[in-house]
Amino acid sequence: MPQDLPVSPLAPKKMAKPKALGHVRLSALASGARYQGRDDVLLVALPAGSTVAGVFTQSKMPSAAVDLSRANLRAAKGKARALLVNAGNANAFTGQAGAKAALVTAQATAEQIGCKPHEVLVASTGVIGEVLETAPVLKAVQQADGAADWQAAARAIMTTDSFPKLATATAKFGKEQVTLTGIAKGSGMIAPDMATMLAFIFTDAALPVAVLQKLLSQTNQDSFNCVTVDSDTSTSDTCLLVATGEKKIAGAAVRSANDKRLAAFQKALAAVMQDLAQQVARDGEGISKLMTIEVAGAESDAAARRIGLAIGNSPLVKTAIAGEDANWGRIVMAIGKSGEKAERDRLAISIGGIKVARSGKVVPGYKEAPVARHMKGKEISIAVNVGADKGKGKGKARIWASDLTHGYISINADYRS
Amino acid sequence: MPQDLPVSPLAPKKMAKPKALGHVRLSALASGARYQGRDDVLLVALPAGSTVAGVFTQSKMPSAAVDLSRANLRAAKGKARALLVNAGNANAFTGQAGAKAALVTAQATAEQIGCKPHEVLVASTGVIGEVLETAPVLKAVQQADGAADWQAAARAIMTTDSFPKLATATAKFGKEQVTLTGIAKGSGMIAPDMATMLAFIFTDAALPVAVLQKLLSQTNQDSFNCVTVDSDTSTSDTCLLVATGEKKIAGAAVRSANDKRLAAFQKALAAVMQDLAQQVARDGEGISKLMTIEVAGAESDAAARRIGLAIGNSPLVKTAIAGEDANWGRIVMAIGKSGEKAERDRLAISIGGIKVARSGKVVPGYKEAPVARHMKGKEISIAVNVGADKGKGKGKARIWASDLTHGYISINADYRS
Repeated sequence: MPQDLPVSPLAPKKMAKPKALGHVRLSALASGARYQGRDDVLLVALPAGSTVAGVFTQSKMPSAAVDLSRANLRAAKGKARALLVNAGNANAFTGQAGAKAALVTAQATAEQIGCKPHEVLVASTGVIGEVLETAPVLKAVQQADGAADWQAAARAIMTTDSFPKLATATAKFGKEQVTLTGIAKGSGMIAPDMATMLAFIFTDAALPVAVLQKLLSQTNQDSFNCVTVDSDTSTSDTCLLVATGEKKIAGAAVRSANDKRLAAFQKALAAVMQDLAQQVARDGEGISKLMTIEVAGAESDAAARRIGLAIGNSPLVKTAIAGEDANWGRIVMAIGKSGEKAERDRLAISIGGIKVARSGKVVPGYKEAPVARHMKGKEISIAVNVGADKGKGKGKARIWASDLTHGYISINADYRS
Repeated sequence: MPQDLPVSPLAPKKMAKPKALGHVRLSALASGARYQGRDDVLLVALPAGSTVAGVFTQSKMPSAAVDLSRANLRAAKGKARALLVNAGNANAFTGQAGAKAALVTAQATAEQIGCKPHEVLVASTGVIGEVLETAPVLKAVQQADGAADWQAAARAIMTTDSFPKLATATAKFGKEQVTLTGIAKGSGMIAPDMATMLAFIFTDAALPVAVLQKLLSQTNQDSFNCVTVDSDTSTSDTCLLVATGEKKIAGAAVRSANDKRLAAFQKALAAVMQDLAQQVARDGEGISKLMTIEVAGAESDAAARRIGLAIGNSPLVKTAIAGEDANWGRIVMAIGKSGEKAERDRLAISIGGIKVARSGKVVPGYKEAPVARHMKGKEISIAVNVGADKGKGKGKARIWASDLTHGYISINADYRS
């Protein structure tokens, strides 16, 4: 695994510096199992009463950590007291031995925190096929001091990431002001399918599990499920939303995600999750340019998302972007192969805000020069209207994707990650 | 477009040298429209009574040539007298002007041959989004002399191909001996979806259209639909099977593809189509290694094909192969993301005939050295049994795929093709 990758040219210029969030206690720890001279274990201790929602990889080959977290969320009915994350070993495809290793680390965490083992959630990413060595992790857990800040927490979960990913927001929550802070990791084996990569979002708001789950699942569709680096869905994808319950909304209990009092909270949650999702795309392995793909005129939002992902995952579109080639024919190809409803003779394409094609052909008098100028930038915007349902389709989506460069090949053909 | 690509290291060592096939007359012509110093137009004149079956791209953005050939096959009820192929311009996404250009070339061909315009099939590949310039093509058509051999025909349809693709076989057909000869092109924008790329197979057998279509559609599933270079389905994919009808089967008329008298013919057809399909994979842009992926234990043959394609299309599997890295965890990932039924704890994987994983984990005492030796070769074999339906799944498939190398990036990021 490359240890000295340069920071992505698309990394955000500044890193957020969130304050402590309620009684969430962070420990960033060094197990030494795979990496030297850096933290690789994160232990998050949560106050009693915390509720948790989760979405997990749709892979048929889920990791032992995904299996255990799914089971524990069910067993504890959405309550949790701790989260343990290790970087460098995915503990995936490791059979009974891997399942046992995950359980042992959860048990040790429970002892350290003073809770029940099924109140611990776990997440592991890194190499597939090697059983997690528990001794270094257990030793690290015993060092937990709750003294880390969010930036250290974001760093401790990185694997091939070139920068730590952090986002934060505040929102009105009834009469209270609540905070939402999230961290994420991921830069390869990134393709959206329910959840992608690891992302953990924390808030001090009080929300029942069912509402929390609804908010997470909904928001996930327009954030992490709209990111792709390489179309390869991980075995370890986990996205958790934790509400510590310290700040309660006044009046009647919240029973629905559509409760109007949640409007500001929902907006802030979307902002944090989209920010993190975009940061993952910005750290796509070998990235030289970030594509933002806006799809409109599709049969449904889900169809629009699949069309956007067909564009964002197409090796030929990705290499054209990398090569600064305004080869919009490849965008036509990608829309065509998506299998979604699209009317060729109504299709419109813009690149960098400049109309390139409409009504199924290049615009009259099309000049490539201004488009070529846009292609030289680091952030490329592509907008398509696919004209489904005789031009009346209302489905839309926005996708973030990396390009495909020699850097991606070097990282993935030359290292085991 | 790169004009001087080195020949693929996976090219077949020898090229077949088929003899003339019945009254099929080949003209390999130079229009000069896009390429200099080479033929780029192929005109095939067919004897009266020839029947044709076709499968075409499932893209929602089909080229004008695909539209016209589909329409003409319907209008002429599966009869045809000529096929016109041009290389360098796909005439795709070109609106009414493109449709007209395709029609004009078909009309000129009909005049040259002495048939009706709807008895002409057309195929175009190359740049997307530019209307086909008809004048150079018409001029070339007028030079048709019927004097080319199969090798020249295979060369005339190449675009980014590094070698011409040709396959031939003979088969018993009742008491007759019939010939099957096919040519194909394609090396990028290759992903199976009904038909892929251009492939034309000719036989002197007499077969009714309905039987011919059934034979083609069936055989296509296990040949061209099992090839992938880059998961990008072309707007121009066309595969035609032409029967000139010169050699008739004795006895009752053939009415079904299951007619036992067709067994040898069917076997030869499969051999020719699989040979051509594999040649397309062998010419995958930037290829350094050919993957042959055998999938067993799936819910159905179609499920097995989708699992094999998920492996063959995965950028992380492809780069691992390119990097000679026996990173079988990425194969697990790809199976998991395919969405098809697969039982993690029954999954078995072999590489180069060596068992790597079984029952959902690495084999006891696994040694990487012999697998690593296999990875250094040019032809990599991967076999998986996905254990669907509690290990009783009977679905199987064989997929051919190229790896993903710096060469692919160079070809597609540095040239407009």
